[in-house]
Amino acid sequence: MTISQENQPIIQPVSLIGGGPGAWDLITVRGMNRLQEADVILADHLGPTDELEKLCDISSKTVVDVSKLPYGRQVTQERTNEMLVEYAQQGLKVVRLKGGDPYVFGRGFEELEFLGEHGIECEVIPGVTSAVSVPAAAGIPITNRGVVHSFTVVSGHLPPGHPKSLVDWAALAKSGGTLSIIMGVKNAGAIAEALMDGGLDADTPAAVIQEGTTDAQRSVRCTLGTLGAVMVEEEIKPPAVYVIGQVAGL
Amino acid sequence: MTISQENQPIIQPVSLIGGGPGAWDLITVRGMNRLQEADVILADHLGPTDELEKLCDISSKTVVDVSKLPYGRQVTQERTNEMLVEYAQQGLKVVRLKGGDPYVFGRGFEELEFLGEHGIECEVIPGVTSAVSVPAAAGIPITNRGVVHSFTVVSGHLPPGHPKSLVDWAALAKSGGTLSIIMGVKNAGAIAEALMDGGLDADTPAAVIQEGTTDAQRSVRCTLGTLGAVMVEEEIKPPAVYVIGQVAGL
Repeated sequence: MTISQENQPIIQPVSLIGGGPGAWDLITVRGMNRLQEADVILADHLGPTDELEKLCDISSKTVVDVSKLPYGRQVTQERTNEMLVEYAQQGLKVVRLKGGDPYVFGRGFEELEFLGEHGIECEVIPGVTSAVSVPAAAGIPITNRGVVHSFTVVSGHLPPGHPKSLVDWAALAKSGGTLSIIMGVKNAGAIAEALMDGGLDADTPAAVIQEGTTDAQRSVRCTLGTLGAVMVEEEIKPPAVYVIGQVAGL
Repeated sequence: MTISQENQPIIQPVSLIGGGPGAWDLITVRGMNRLQEADVILADHLGPTDELEKLCDISSKTVVDVSKLPYGRQVTQERTNEMLVEYAQQGLKVVRLKGGDPYVFGRGFEELEFLGEHGIECEVIPGVTSAVSVPAAAGIPITNRGVVHSFTVVSGHLPPGHPKSLVDWAALAKSGGTLSIIMGVKNAGAIAEALMDGGLDADTPAAVIQEGTTDAQRSVRCTLGTLGAVMVEEEIKPPAVYVIGQVAGL
């Protein structure tokens, strides 16, 4: 903690850190350095949280679990935002450690805006996104020369046709690029159907990777047509990524 | 170098490392560790090459420049592949340091395949992709809740309509997601036209960021309709990323 001459805490910038896909050493060097400087770390169940002690001396820090687990522990986004402000206003160096990259469906921008509304600066440290690195860990390149010149990362948390969905699955079926879907375990069957309805061939190679880059990683190759059934048969659970496109057959 | 009992060099796995968008400390911890272990580093002009000495003691290593600069130094991919094999066959610990992520248009899979054909193992260490982190460095989140549920990363190295292009720009215009285009400086005007022809509104917010995350970073906000002209007026040069979508207006 830093105290000014008037005994008021000096507010330090909060760091929003992308912790990467899961393995502890896939965080950036800058991210690790900020963890080491932190007084308080707000972490969830994603990223390198389980191995935080390999990145910094946690005995001297306050580590707060702000997980939003499906059917499990739930800290609301509003409460997380408030805690970031409360700790920062005490003059503590606060780090918000997130899985993957803070801006890839991570609600990072909401946290930055909330801090800004309270006059607190925020530094965003990017991370290795699971959408690219988890397929790679299973041997699948998200792009390959002569095969594909684009890839689309989609949040699968809403099923196709949901009134709040902002994804045009029919357009994505025609994009010509690889599709990498995260947070979409429960909607995999419906998403595969929507893509086939949009014209994507049922024989298009696909792959599912659960807990990629960690010791618990497991993956299965299939096709777009079998994706939904395979995920049920294999009892795939979050966090998982599925990738659809010719690269999944390489 | 490791020598076997028969005085034959023991071939070690080659590491393909994503060096991140440019700033030296945006490489992963694992990537930094491999650089420190390396005997030979094959690097190009992207990623943290200019500040390699902050990541490892380069005085004890052979650093080879394998850049493919537009209109500049050109080492062919074939020669890079051969050098990876030659150094590895000498029993040296070889690292191939790339910008961004090895599988995001990085020709990483070609290098892995070539090594495999020569019986040499290859480890791929993911990196922070410029497509996400460079917009972030300019304050632009590639996704934001309630605004966008997907983003597409496109290589802009071929203009729309080129016989070798694998991108359906009209489909991407309808995807509903953010577009992040890398390696597309010279084709920006044609790409913007193709997206507008595909139905994307000319008023869609856009932004261009040159040399993102480095000290030389500069960025300009515009719209899809003005993107091509702005890039010419501002004399934007590679490496640059442009991002198109509502998030560029946040």
